[in-house]
Amino acid sequence: MSHANPAKKIINNPLKCADELFEGLVIAYDGKARRVGTRSIVMNDLRPDAPALLVGGGAGHEPIYHGLVGKGMADGAAVGEIFAAPPPDIVLEATQALNRGKGVLFLYGNYAGDVMNFDIGAELAADEGITVKTVIIADDVCSAPPSEKHKRRGVAGLVPITKIAGGAAMSVDSLDELARIAQKACDNTRTVGVSTKPGSIPATGKPTFELADDIIGLGMGIHGEKGVALIPMCTADELAVKILDLLFADDLALNAGDEIVFFVNSLGSTHMMELLILLRAAKPILEKRGIKIHQTIVDNIVTCQEMAGVSFSITKLDAELKKFWDLPCESVGYTKL
Amino acid sequence: MSHANPAKKIINNPLKCADELFEGLVIAYDGKARRVGTRSIVMNDLRPDAPALLVGGGAGHEPIYHGLVGKGMADGAAVGEIFAAPPPDIVLEATQALNRGKGVLFLYGNYAGDVMNFDIGAELAADEGITVKTVIIADDVCSAPPSEKHKRRGVAGLVPITKIAGGAAMSVDSLDELARIAQKACDNTRTVGVSTKPGSIPATGKPTFELADDIIGLGMGIHGEKGVALIPMCTADELAVKILDLLFADDLALNAGDEIVFFVNSLGSTHMMELLILLRAAKPILEKRGIKIHQTIVDNIVTCQEMAGVSFSITKLDAELKKFWDLPCESVGYTKL
Repeated sequence: MSHANPAKKIINNPLKCADELFEGLVIAYDGKARRVGTRSIVMNDLRPDAPALLVGGGAGHEPIYHGLVGKGMADGAAVGEIFAAPPPDIVLEATQALNRGKGVLFLYGNYAGDVMNFDIGAELAADEGITVKTVIIADDVCSAPPSEKHKRRGVAGLVPITKIAGGAAMSVDSLDELARIAQKACDNTRTVGVSTKPGSIPATGKPTFELADDIIGLGMGIHGEKGVALIPMCTADELAVKILDLLFADDLALNAGDEIVFFVNSLGSTHMMELLILLRAAKPILEKRGIKIHQTIVDNIVTCQEMAGVSFSITKLDAELKKFWDLPCESVGYTKL
Repeated sequence: MSHANPAKKIINNPLKCADELFEGLVIAYDGKARRVGTRSIVMNDLRPDAPALLVGGGAGHEPIYHGLVGKGMADGAAVGEIFAAPPPDIVLEATQALNRGKGVLFLYGNYAGDVMNFDIGAELAADEGITVKTVIIADDVCSAPPSEKHKRRGVAGLVPITKIAGGAAMSVDSLDELARIAQKACDNTRTVGVSTKPGSIPATGKPTFELADDIIGLGMGIHGEKGVALIPMCTADELAVKILDLLFADDLALNAGDEIVFFVNSLGSTHMMELLILLRAAKPILEKRGIKIHQTIVDNIVTCQEMAGVSFSITKLDAELKKFWDLPCESVGYTKL
């Protein structure tokens, strides 16, 4: 291999990673999904005359977003290069493949490149007579205060949000209704993450950021974006308190009797043992407030090459969101009965 | 924290990891499973008058084994300390909780400590009038030649094997029948792994083995056990060929028209991007031989703290194994519709 590979990554040409992982992903769907155009993946058996759900984003964070395509999940995904938004023509190709006369909902994380490219994709789709609506995921509490929510990044909350929107896409008949439910799922979802080790860039092998050996980044984004504080490494029990305090301090009301989906995510290199030890710490804190966990997810779904760290996501369920949450789903990234 | 933590693990007392992750795991089951005795987990709604499926092994490899408890998966698991077999009394506690008058199948990986403790557990259970049968998983092709299969270790093949045995446990009425099907799943499963980076021991923070920066361990076990060769780091395409060559050279006949479950596993710190790039390389090689992938699994299910590396597992399906494979299942570690 002619390129440096300090992270010892099992790849071929580091500049072809996005294309090659995409081809592997299509294979992983065992014929249930297909490649469309340059780098989009689309489910084969779609409900006729229904609004479509399109997700997307940069590669290198697998299984999101493209691994969230599936039955009861997203209908398709537009896939970018490593850590880069999908270009507008890829968004358009996916949109054309998904539209069944009822329009397409774009659902993706709040990053400048994604917003720009999906917006251009929506204009191109409009030129083709396809109606598009957009819901932007911005669940990262630590990326901006509640008064500047439009600046917040989209992070691990995208998993329960996509699951709920996917449940709605199985069920509702209009794009407006699908967009309304997806927006409600976003409005009810908050995430706080912490990073313990940097990721690496496959093309260069270089770390995505620097972090001292005894320091962790509270509120850091999944690419190493600035968080709220660099703090000393602490125990799992201490960390669970710090993360939950930030979640409780935000503007999503969480009261006794509320039901939530609670998602403990690993950024990839943090192993499940640690997620489970954190869940053990978090549950009694939630219980003490009378908050009921309707369903727990413990997995590494929103990741970044070599990066270690975790996040807690809370999605507050009302009767409608719970109904869509409870539908079964199947995808490479998340499956439930 | 009073202990060294060079791996920057998000834990509390390093000597309490197994107990604490176990408590977290029970929480992750959202009331579908419960703790029994010292450190066993058992499903709540079990089919009456049916033979039971008990799995188990050391902690620190999550989500296996204890995360494979679930609907259509194992009925329960006996959990050891980190990297240590469950003691006989824990095996007995799980066995007593699971037995519904039709006996209990012990299904676990071929490690000396596990064999000894599960065997003593079986004797203790016999004293209580509980019939036990044992099927030992020994899928690691590189741990001994076919002529010494009894020396082979159990590795990632345990996932499709437990899935098939779990499907059988939902369906059959006798322990003999359950044991026969589990044994057939074992006989039809082979795994070859490669390790790129060592794991770490939570209690000491020390690496589980040493590996030079440009060397990978072909056939290495999930605790760093000796493999077939230390080879220079290579590309994903080259590695896929090497792994499949070892699988094809073993004594499981794989002919044109055969259907398989193909499982690409990460040892935990290798990210899904790499698994997908390996799958892309493997599929055409299988296709060229006329081997059909019935279902693909791409995930990190059989892991070891901080360890990086991958394995390919092949389970050849006949009509009976396919029937049990195709049943839905739900667990923390693996779920399918």
